[in-house]
Amino acid sequence: MTALRVTVWNEYVQDATDPAIVAVYPRGIHAAISEGLSELLGDDIDVRHATMGEPEHGLSRETLSTTDVLFWWGHLAHDDVADAVVDAVQQRVLDGMGLIVLHSAAGSKIFRRLMGTSCRLDWRHGDRELLWTVNPTHPIAEGVPHPVIIPEQEMYGEFFDIPVPDQLVFISSFSGGEVFRSGCCFLRGKGRIFYFSPGHEEYPVYLQPEVKRILANAARWATPTWRSDIVIDDGAHRDTGWFENGER
Amino acid sequence: MTALRVTVWNEYVQDATDPAIVAVYPRGIHAAISEGLSELLGDDIDVRHATMGEPEHGLSRETLSTTDVLFWWGHLAHDDVADAVVDAVQQRVLDGMGLIVLHSAAGSKIFRRLMGTSCRLDWRHGDRELLWTVNPTHPIAEGVPHPVIIPEQEMYGEFFDIPVPDQLVFISSFSGGEVFRSGCCFLRGKGRIFYFSPGHEEYPVYLQPEVKRILANAARWATPTWRSDIVIDDGAHRDTGWFENGER
Amino acid sequence: MTALRVTVWNEYVQDATDPAIVAVYPRGIHAAISEGLSELLGDDIDVRHATMGEPEHGLSRETLSTTDVLFWWGHLAHDDVADAVVDAVQQRVLDGMGLIVLHSAAGSKIFRRLMGTSCRLDWRHGDRELLWTVNPTHPIAEGVPHPVIIPEQEMYGEFFDIPVPDQLVFISSFSGGEVFRSGCCFLRGKGRIFYFSPGHEEYPVYLQPEVKRILANAARWATPTWRSDIVIDDGAHRDTGWFENGER
Amino acid sequence: MTALRVTVWNEYVQDATDPAIVAVYPRGIHAAISEGLSELLGDDIDVRHATMGEPEHGLSRETLSTTDVLFWWGHLAHDDVADAVVDAVQQRVLDGMGLIVLHSAAGSKIFRRLMGTSCRLDWRHGDRELLWTVNPTHPIAEGVPHPVIIPEQEMYGEFFDIPVPDQLVFISSFSGGEVFRSGCCFLRGKGRIFYFSPGHEEYPVYLQPEVKRILANAARWATPTWRSDIVIDDGAHRDTGWFENGER
Repeated sequence: MTALRVTVWNEYVQDATDPAIVAVYPRGIHAAISEGLSELLGDDIDVRHATMGEPEHGLSRETLSTTDVLFWWGHLAHDDVADAVVDAVQQRVLDGMGLIVLHSAAGSKIFRRLMGTSCRLDWRHGDRELLWTVNPTHPIAEGVPHPVIIPEQEMYGEFFDIPVPDQLVFISSFSGGEVFRSGCCFLRGKGRIFYFSPGHEEYPVYLQPEVKRILANAARWATPTWRSDIVIDDGAHRDTGWFENGER
Repeated sequence: MTALRVTVWNEYVQDATDPAIVAVYPRGIHAAISEGLSELLGDDIDVRHATMGEPEHGLSRETLSTTDVLFWWGHLAHDDVADAVVDAVQQRVLDGMGLIVLHSAAGSKIFRRLMGTSCRLDWRHGDRELLWTVNPTHPIAEGVPHPVIIPEQEMYGEFFDIPVPDQLVFISSFSGGEVFRSGCCFLRGKGRIFYFSPGHEEYPVYLQPEVKRILANAARWATPTWRSDIVIDDGAHRDTGWFENGER
Repeated sequence: MTALRVTVWNEYVQDATDPAIVAVYPRGIHAAISEGLSELLGDDIDVRHATMGEPEHGLSRETLSTTDVLFWWGHLAHDDVADAVVDAVQQRVLDGMGLIVLHSAAGSKIFRRLMGTSCRLDWRHGDRELLWTVNPTHPIAEGVPHPVIIPEQEMYGEFFDIPVPDQLVFISSFSGGEVFRSGCCFLRGKGRIFYFSPGHEEYPVYLQPEVKRILANAARWATPTWRSDIVIDDGAHRDTGWFENGER
Repeated sequence: MTALRVTVWNEYVQDATDPAIVAVYPRGIHAAISEGLSELLGDDIDVRHATMGEPEHGLSRETLSTTDVLFWWGHLAHDDVADAVVDAVQQRVLDGMGLIVLHSAAGSKIFRRLMGTSCRLDWRHGDRELLWTVNPTHPIAEGVPHPVIIPEQEMYGEFFDIPVPDQLVFISSFSGGEVFRSGCCFLRGKGRIFYFSPGHEEYPVYLQPEVKRILANAARWATPTWRSDIVIDDGAHRDTGWFENGER
C-alpha cells in the first residue's frame, strides 16, 4: 500500500506575524495540522506543507498532481489567492483529489467556487462548542466521542449558505444557543470535499485529540482509492447503433 | 378552491386524565392544534378530530379516504394502537395523504413503520429550545423567526435514529447543549411526511404563535395538490415493443 | 395575486441565422418558450425576452431585480457571455430568483458557476428520448405523462458531471441505450434552479405539449413565493449572551 | 485483518425445483453468488449459505450475530418468511449489519420493512439491460464498465416505490425504453443497505464478471468497519447541567 500523499495549505499570515496567534501555533497552523495527521496515520501518510508566500502559493501543477488530499486553511487573505491557482485546484478536485476545507476557509475562493454559493455564516468570538454525530456509520465519525466538547471556540452559526451537503456528519451547538452544520461532505466530479468548521487561530483546537482524529479520518475518506475510467468531457462517445454493432 | 381536509389525531390520555396536563391543554392537545390551524387558515381548512378511544381510533376507512393531511400526537399509548389502523394509515400515506408527526409520536407505530428505523432519541425534561431554519426557501419556514425561542420544552437530542431526511428544515439547540434535527420532511410513495419535534404535554408549546405558523405551513405543504397517474403495483404495464407499436 | 414575472433569455445565434434552425423556430427559441408559458399560464404570467445581442445581454440590474424566474437557453456562444452578467445573475439566484436552465445551457457559464462542476455530458444527434417521472409528488411532474415520448431529440447521456440533485424529478432513456438525469432541481442560497435537458435547436421539442407543461410547472415551482428574513452575510449578528439578555 | 463474514440467503424454490431454472443455477442462486464473492475476495471473505427450508430459515440469532453482511434473494415465497425472522434481521441491520437486497427481493418483507414503502415496480420478461454509473467516486462502482451490458434480463422499470436513495450509484435502461434506479444505497440506523436490481432466475446474470465485481464491492461497502458507541434507545442520557458539571 502506497502512502497517502497529503498537502496542508495555509495562508500563514496571522500565525506568522501576530504574537498572540504565534503563541498558540508557534510553527503555524499547517504544522499543527500535519503533526496531528502524522501522529495518527504515521507511515500511512506522506505530508507536505504549502503556504501563500511561496511561488504559485506552493501549489504548482506538479505538487497538485502528486497530492491525494489537500487541506486548506485561510482567513484574512482569501482575496490574495491567485485565480489561476484556484482554477488549478478546482480542476484537480473534479479530477479526483480530496479537499478538506477548514473553519474560516468557508469564505475561501476555492470553497465558494466549488459550492456555487456565498458560503457565508454568522459568527462571534468566545464561545464553547459541542459537536454531535448525526451519521453513525460515516467513516469520518469513527472513534469520535458523542459529543466532542471544544471548550474555547469561535461561534459559527446558521444560516450557513452552502448547498445541502451530500452527507451531513456533524452538527454543533454553542453556549450562545446557535447551531451549525459543522461536518459536511460534498461530492463534486470525481472528488470528495469535507468541510469542518471547528478550528480558530486564537484557540488550540487543532491540538485537541478528538479534532486530530476527525482530520485523520477525513484524510482517509477523501483519498481517491480508485480511479473511474469515466471520461468527463463534452464528447460524442459512441456512434448511433453502437450497442447493436457490438461496440463498447 | 376546495378546503384542505385535516384530521388531528390524539391518543388523548394524559391531557384527558392528568390534572397538570389538563391545565395546560384543557380541551386536549388535538383541540389546541386544530384551533391554531383554524386561526391561521380559516376557511381554507376543514378540520376534524380523532382520538384513540373511538372505534377504529376514529380513523375509519371513510375518514382516512376523506383526509388530505393527518396530524398525529401520541406518547404513552403507542402500543395500544391497532395494527390494522397503522396498516390503513400507511397505505393512505403511500397513496398520497400528508402526515404530520408531532414530538413524542416519533415513537409511534405509524412513524416507525414509515421510516423503517427505531426513531429513538435522547431526551430530558426541563429545557429551553432554539429552533433555527437551515432551508430558507422551504415553504414550511415561511414567516418563521430565525430562531424560534421556546422557553420551556422537553429536550430531544441526537442521535435521532431516522433515515436522512429528504429535506431538513429546522435544527434545534437546547440549553443543555444538545442538538436535534427538529423539522424533517420525508417523501414516501405519493405522500409527504413532516416530523416536528417541539411540543410537549407539560408545556404550552402548541399555543405559541410561531409553532402555530409552522404547523399551518406544514399542513399546506403536505397536502396532495395533484394526483399522479402513476400506477404503483407489481404489474407488467406494457408488452414488449410497446413503444414501437405506438402503444402508450 | 400578482403575475409571475418571467424573463426568457436566449443567445439567439443559430435560430437567428441558420435557415434550418430558423425553419423550426422562426421567431427564435425564446419566443417558442414564452408562447408555451403564456398558453398555459395566461394572465398568471408576465413574460419578457432578453437576448445576447442587447446591451448587458438584455439583463440589466433593473431587469434582473424585477424577474422572478429566468429561463436560460444557450449553445454556441457560452464564452461570449460577459462575466459581469454572470456575476449579477448568480447573485440574484442566491438572493431568491428562480433559474430554469435548458438543454445545451448545461455548458453555460452561469450553470457551471452555480454548480461548481464541469457540467459536461455525453451526446449524439438523432435519437428518440423517453422521459420518466421518478418523483410522483413533485409539482414539476404534475400532469406529465409517464413517460413523455420525444420522437426526435439529441441524445444526452451519463456521466453528467453535476452535483447530486437536491430533487431528481425525471430520468430519460434514449434509443441508443443511454440514460440521463433529465430533470434536476437544485437549491442554492434562497434560489431554486431547475435543469431540464430536452430541447434542441434542430427539433421542435419546445412545441410539444408535454414539454410546455413541464416548463410551466417549473416556472411556478422556481418562483420565490415568500422571502426569508434570514440575512446572508458574514456578520456577527448577536452579541454574547444575546439570548439571556432577551435580545432577539 | 479478520475475514468479512457473509451469509447468502436464498428462498431456494425455483432454483431447487424448476428444471429450466436449475439448468441456469444448478447449485442454487445462493451458490452462484457466493462463488462469485469467493472468486473475487478469496481469503478476505468467510461465506455461509442460509435457505428458507432450514429452521428459522437458517437465520438463527447466532448466525445473524456473526454475520457482517447478509445477501437476500427471494421471489415467489416472500409471504412465507416468518415475521420473527424479519424482526431479527431488521434489528441486526439497525445495529450495524450490512444488507444486500437482490432483484425480486425488492418485494421481500425485510426490504419493505426497512424502506417503509411498497417497493413495487414495473416489469416484463425478455429484455436487454444497460447499467450506467452516475456516482463515479462510489466504491461500489470501482472497476465497473460504463455501461455494463446485460444481454438477457427481466426488465424492471420506474416508478419504483422506494424512498429517495441516500446514494444513487447506477441507473439502467432497457431495450423497451424503460429506466430504473438499479443500484441504490440506503443508510438505516447503524447499518448500510444496497439494493441491486439485475439478476433473474432465468438468466445467468450472477455469472457475469461485471456483476460479480459489483456484488463483491457491495459486500465490502456494506461491512461495518467500525462500531459507533452511540446508544440508540429512548433514554435520558444526561442530567440537566451535565455539561457544566463536567459530566460526559
